[in-house]
Parts: sequence; C-alpha cells; structure tokens
Amino acid sequence: MTVSGNGMSGVPAWLDPRDDRVARAAWTRLAEPGDAAAGRVVSALGAGPALLAVVERPEELSLYLKDARSVAGWRVRLGQAQPLRDLETVARFGGSLVIPSDPDWPPGLAALGEREPFALWVRGPASPAVPVGRTVALVGCRASSGYGDWVAAEFAAACADRGVTVVSGAAYGIDAQAHRGALAAGGPTTAVLACGVDRPYPRGNEDLIERIAGSGAVLSEVPPGSSPTRWRFVTRNRLIAALAGVTVVVEAGWRSGSSITAREANDLGRPVAAVPGQVTSATSAGCHRLLREGAVCVTDAAEVMELLAPVGVDPAPRRVARPAVHDGLDPADLRVLDALPLRRPVDLERLAPTAGVAPETLRAALARLELAGLAVRVGPAWRRAPAPRPERLLPGNQAPGSAADQ
Amino acid sequence: MTVSGNGMSGVPAWLDPRDDRVARAAWTRLAEPGDAAAGRVVSALGAGPALLAVVERPEELSLYLKDARSVAGWRVRLGQAQPLRDLETVARFGGSLVIPSDPDWPPGLAALGEREPFALWVRGPASPAVPVGRTVALVGCRASSGYGDWVAAEFAAACADRGVTVVSGAAYGIDAQAHRGALAAGGPTTAVLACGVDRPYPRGNEDLIERIAGSGAVLSEVPPGSSPTRWRFVTRNRLIAALAGVTVVVEAGWRSGSSITAREANDLGRPVAAVPGQVTSATSAGCHRLLREGAVCVTDAAEVMELLAPVGVDPAPRRVARPAVHDGLDPADLRVLDALPLRRPVDLERLAPTAGVAPETLRAALARLELAGLAVRVGPAWRRAPAPRPERLLPGNQAPGSAADQ
Repeated sequence: MTVSGNGMSGVPAWLDPRDDRVARAAWTRLAEPGDAAAGRVVSALGAGPALLAVVERPEELSLYLKDARSVAGWRVRLGQAQPLRDLETVARFGGSLVIPSDPDWPPGLAALGEREPFALWVRGPASPAVPVGRTVALVGCRASSGYGDWVAAEFAAACADRGVTVVSGAAYGIDAQAHRGALAAGGPTTAVLACGVDRPYPRGNEDLIERIAGSGAVLSEVPPGSSPTRWRFVTRNRLIAALAGVTVVVEAGWRSGSSITAREANDLGRPVAAVPGQVTSATSAGCHRLLREGAVCVTDAAEVMELLAPVGVDPAPRRVARPAVHDGLDPADLRVLDALPLRRPVDLERLAPTAGVAPETLRAALARLELAGLAVRVGPAWRRAPAPRPERLLPGNQAPGSAADQ
Repeated sequence: MTVSGNGMSGVPAWLDPRDDRVARAAWTRLAEPGDAAAGRVVSALGAGPALLAVVERPEELSLYLKDARSVAGWRVRLGQAQPLRDLETVARFGGSLVIPSDPDWPPGLAALGEREPFALWVRGPASPAVPVGRTVALVGCRASSGYGDWVAAEFAAACADRGVTVVSGAAYGIDAQAHRGALAAGGPTTAVLACGVDRPYPRGNEDLIERIAGSGAVLSEVPPGSSPTRWRFVTRNRLIAALAGVTVVVEAGWRSGSSITAREANDLGRPVAAVPGQVTSATSAGCHRLLREGAVCVTDAAEVMELLAPVGVDPAPRRVARPAVHDGLDPADLRVLDALPLRRPVDLERLAPTAGVAPETLRAALARLELAGLAVRVGPAWRRAPAPRPERLLPGNQAPGSAADQ
C-alpha cells in the first residue's frame, strides 16, 4: 500500500480500516458537516471500510448514493486528509476526538440520523455527553439589544444554577451572553463552533472561548485548522439543536440563523421556545415570528425548565398574585358586597333591591361577608368593612393584581 | 290593575306584556347583567309575559330555574323599575334602547345564549350593529406603560383606517388609548360601559366618552343612572368579547380583567390575540400568560386583521427581508462560493479540495455563480465577486437579515 502524490489513488498510509477513530477523523476532513450521503455510507459500511471503498472502489458506493458526484467530492479531498496530525494538533490543545462508540458521545446526536456527525473535536474538561434533558440551547442574533443581552445572561445563569448545561454558538451578542451568564454562575457551558477548535471564531470572542474551554467544552465537527464557512454556520445549528432538550431563541431578527436552529429542534421533536419582546424591536421580530408559528412563549428560566422536564421534575412554579378581597365570592355575595356602602350603614330593606337579591339570600350573604371580614354590622344596618392596608411594595415592584389591572 | 306602594305585588301600570321594548327596559333594571336564569325565562316566555309571571305567578317560573331565589331577587327590584322614565332619560341624552328584534341589534351577541343582554342602552350616531367580522376588541390594563399606550393607539388607528370598529371599555390606560387611536383616525369606536350611559365612568374619561358618543357608540346593558359595580365590570367583559370578531389584549398584568374578556372570547370560539412585551414588564405578564395558553401573538394591525378575516380578505402582508447574496443557492454552489477567495484568484485544482466537490461539479457551480454575479473568472482562475454595496438604511432602521442576524 502506497500513498500517491495527489491522494487521488492508492491507499494512504494512515488508513487502517479497523481503526474507527482515525477513519472518522479523516471523514471529518473529507465530507462537509451534514453530508447525508457520507453519513449513509459510513453507517452502512463502518467509517474505515467506507473510507477504503472511497479510495479503492468508489463505483461500488453508488448503491448508497443518490448522486455519484458525492464520492468524487470526497476523493478530491483525500490528499488533504491528515487524521494523525489532526489528532496530534487537538491533543496539543488539551483536546481529543470523541466518536459515537465513546461513552461521552452526546446521546442527543443520534436523533440526527444520517446527519449525525462522524466525530466531534472537543476541548475542555466537561464531557460533552450531557443528556438532552439536562441541556438548554440559548441562541439568538449577533446584533442583540441590551434587553436581549440581559435576558440571555439571566436565563443562562438560572440554568447553570440548576446544573443545566447551556449550549450555544459562541457568536457575538446573545450566544456570548448566554455563555457568560452560565460561566458567571459557575456552571458548565458548551460552545459549538463552525470552525476548528484550535482557531476560535469570532476573534473578538477568543478570550470567552478560551474560558469556556477552561471549564466547559468547546466542540466542532470540522477538524483543526478548518475555517468557518457559511455552510458550516448553517449546519452547526443542527448540532446545537440536537445537543439540547429545548432550544430557546432569546432575540432574533425577522430572518435569522436562530430560526434554522429552531427549525432543526422542531424537526427533531424537541420543544422550541422564544422570548417575547416589544413589537417595535427589530431584534424580537424573529422571536415573534416563531411564537406565531407555534413556539412556546417563555418569560423566565423556570418556564424553560418546564419544557426540559415535562413530567414532574422542577416545573415552573405557579406565579402567585396577591388575592383581591372579593376572590372566590359567589356571584350573589359579590353583588351584596358591591351594594354595601363604604361609610353610612344601610338597612336590609334598602340593601335588597340595590343588590337585587331576595331577603333570605341577603341575610345569608351578609353573614358570610361578615365572617370574611368584608362586611360590618352596625345595629340593624350594614356597611362595607374598611379595605385592608395595602402591603408595602418593594421599589419598582409592581404588585400583580393591583391597580395595574382592571 | 294597580301599582302597589312597595312594588312587590300588583301589576305596575307600565307593564303591557305585549310591549317587548318596555318589558326589556324593565328587565335591565330587575336582573343583573349575565343573569342566565332571567335570560332563560325571557327567552322561553318573551320579555313581557315573563315579567308578568314574575309579578303575578312567581311560583310558575320555578320550571325554568335552578334556584327559586332568582325570582325573589327580581321581585325586590320591581319597585325600582321605571322603564318609561329610563327611556325618556336616555332619549334626553340623544340615545335609545336597542332590543334583539331591532335591525341594529349587534349580530355577535346571540352567541351569548342565555347570557345575551335583554337590551342595550345606546348613545351615539353609530349603529351598534357592526358585524363581528368588522369589529376588533382592544383591551388591557389601566396602569399601562408608555409602550402599551403606543401599541393600543397605533393598532386602533390602523383598524379604523381599514373601516374596522374598535370596541373597548373606556377605562383608563389601554382602553382609553384604543378609543383615542380610533377617533384620531376618524374611525367609529364603541365603548361598552359597566354603568348607565348617562353617567360616564371613570370620571377622568368623561370627555373621551362624550367624544365617542359624538361619533361612535357608547352602550351599556344597565339602565340610566346605574352605578358601575365589580359584578358589572366582570360581566361587561363578555359583551366586549361577543361584539368583536377578535379580542386583542394589548397589555395586562398577571391577573387582569382583560383575561376575563379573553376567556369569554375563547369560550365564544372567537380568536384571542395578545401583544408581546419585554419579560421584565409587569404590564405584559398577562399577555405572556395568554400566549402560553394558546393566544395568537400579534405584532401589528395586519396580523390582527388576519384573525378577523381568516379567508382571503386583507391578510397580513408577508414581511420581506432583503435577500442575502447566497439565498437560493444549492448546497454545492454555496460550498464553492465559500471556498472562493475574495482577492487572489485560485485555480480549479486548488479550489476542488477546498470546496470538497468533484471537478465537473465545480465547473458547473462556477458557471452558475458567474451567471449570478457571485464569481469572477480571471484567466484560468476564479475569485469571489465583490460584495454589492449595502443599501443605505434609514437612521434607526435595522435591516432584517443583515448584521443583526447570524
């Protein structure tokens, strides 16, 4: 077996068809992310034998392919495949290659079927094998607003507080804020890159990506040195969706990469949530579009958790509004309460027609209202009890169910 | 036939069982809004005969009643019934009583069944008989935010521009802004009061209610002089919901009267919509709750119209984003475009492995990209075409699909 000069013929020295890891490392170089044809031949033959077939008997692969040109596309890259050197490179960065047979292969990825990555290039101490039930994808636009930034960081910190891994794309804006929020809460966070893990992109987030690699995980399906391309940005979204139990779009323009992640999550049968914003904000237009298309409206991390664990575990607590005095009164009692004057007591003969209830109903209602502390008897007459002193509210805290509501 | 002193026995002089209008005027005094028992006897016997039965043979009505005390409740108010004077009062205000047999009885109210009002006391030149398909209810909290006020006025004006009647409750905050927006656009608007149409409530909106009565309609199911009670506020919401083809909650606290209107609309099978806001805004909490419960997210009046006329008429126009250069490219072409350098042209032998496509695919893709103005041939080599000059944007206008999105 000899390696040919141009790599288009002959079997490369590194190619041992029994070595699944090296073969998968090579496949990440030959095929672009999400190449379903490559996924099909690798899953049918195994990564090593499939690779050998690409080199030696490409025509035999046509059985698995809709378009024979796929093989030609892989073959032109054979000369670039240097899996052993790629493995060395990632090791030098303290990383490794994780393949589906490894225990830390993320279980959520299998749902991608033919589009499941061949392998993941991973840096960082956190194992990527976080079950989808413990992972939330927080994604959004790059040119986020201050509101979106705040929400992303807040939701991420709350997820991290509950031991839930926040996965995002390390882009500017919402992605970066999500990672930062998780890091600030001391929680694990996973960044999925569209380029090699050795060359953080975007450059401005280099420090952030290093911090993620220091305590969480930075992963990519393209080998070291690979540049981020539009195609890789697009296909990267399916990984983010597949790694997480729920995808939350925090802020997004009308036309946004986040909507691709949302669509992928939906196609995988995972819930998609969107954070609402003002209708006048261009950076919320994509979220509102998703809400109109059926995404779940989430306003805090507890509501996100509810989607992550639909049964039992850690559901969103019901918000409790301060009850109004007339809560739970039956209609007749409410009408009697409405009819009671605040100051000058009134007798039963005048009260009955005002309330529009029969005398016996009136007496029973007054007794119940008195018991509830809402009516006061003054000799033979009745008036309303004074309203309870309103509780003092925290500054800036508007009491739900109070004057804000009619 | 004589009128007794206390009105509890004897047939009142005004009671002619054949006069449906006068009898209904009296029923609006005897029974509280939404009294299903009264609705049942009136629809079974007719308003006049039912009233005569209340006076003369109350025991016979037990057939229609779950609770015999209902009749007693109506009877205690017989002494207060003064339908002829009420009709005079409303006429003095330039108003009238509209009953179900009148041509201008709003067709949407029949859906309320036993809770359909006996009659409507109406002021204003606009007939209340606007079909639900031409009516939008815009409702919300009293303590609205500047954002909510803006949205209410904006949506209302846009509805009015399309000849759609805006119905609301004339309360402070969202309701008032909705009426004002409609008036500003010169459109008809309908205020449904919880008190008599002769005594506008709240007082601070007296001028506004007068303006509505001057060009639209102010209506109530309780007779002149009636005070607004909690019960009447609650039951008034069902009228707003029943009059409109769609109910839009613009802003609402977590616990809000608007949610009652929304529930009524939902029970009537009419669509319910909510306007999103920031998750940090207490005045949007009720809207977000509705969105979580299945309300439709609406961000502009066109989307409201879409709900009003689900088929054909005036649908929300699709928003158009400026297309990106790579829109509509097939994956192979996009990969070739990604692989093309911006400056130094590259030959086919180097381009093929970078793009990962076979030589013949590469040539075809380059031809297509050249045709699309995306690739430039330089002798035997190729480079990317310069990016089109970005269109100048209006100040503060963020282009969807541009840098805001990843």
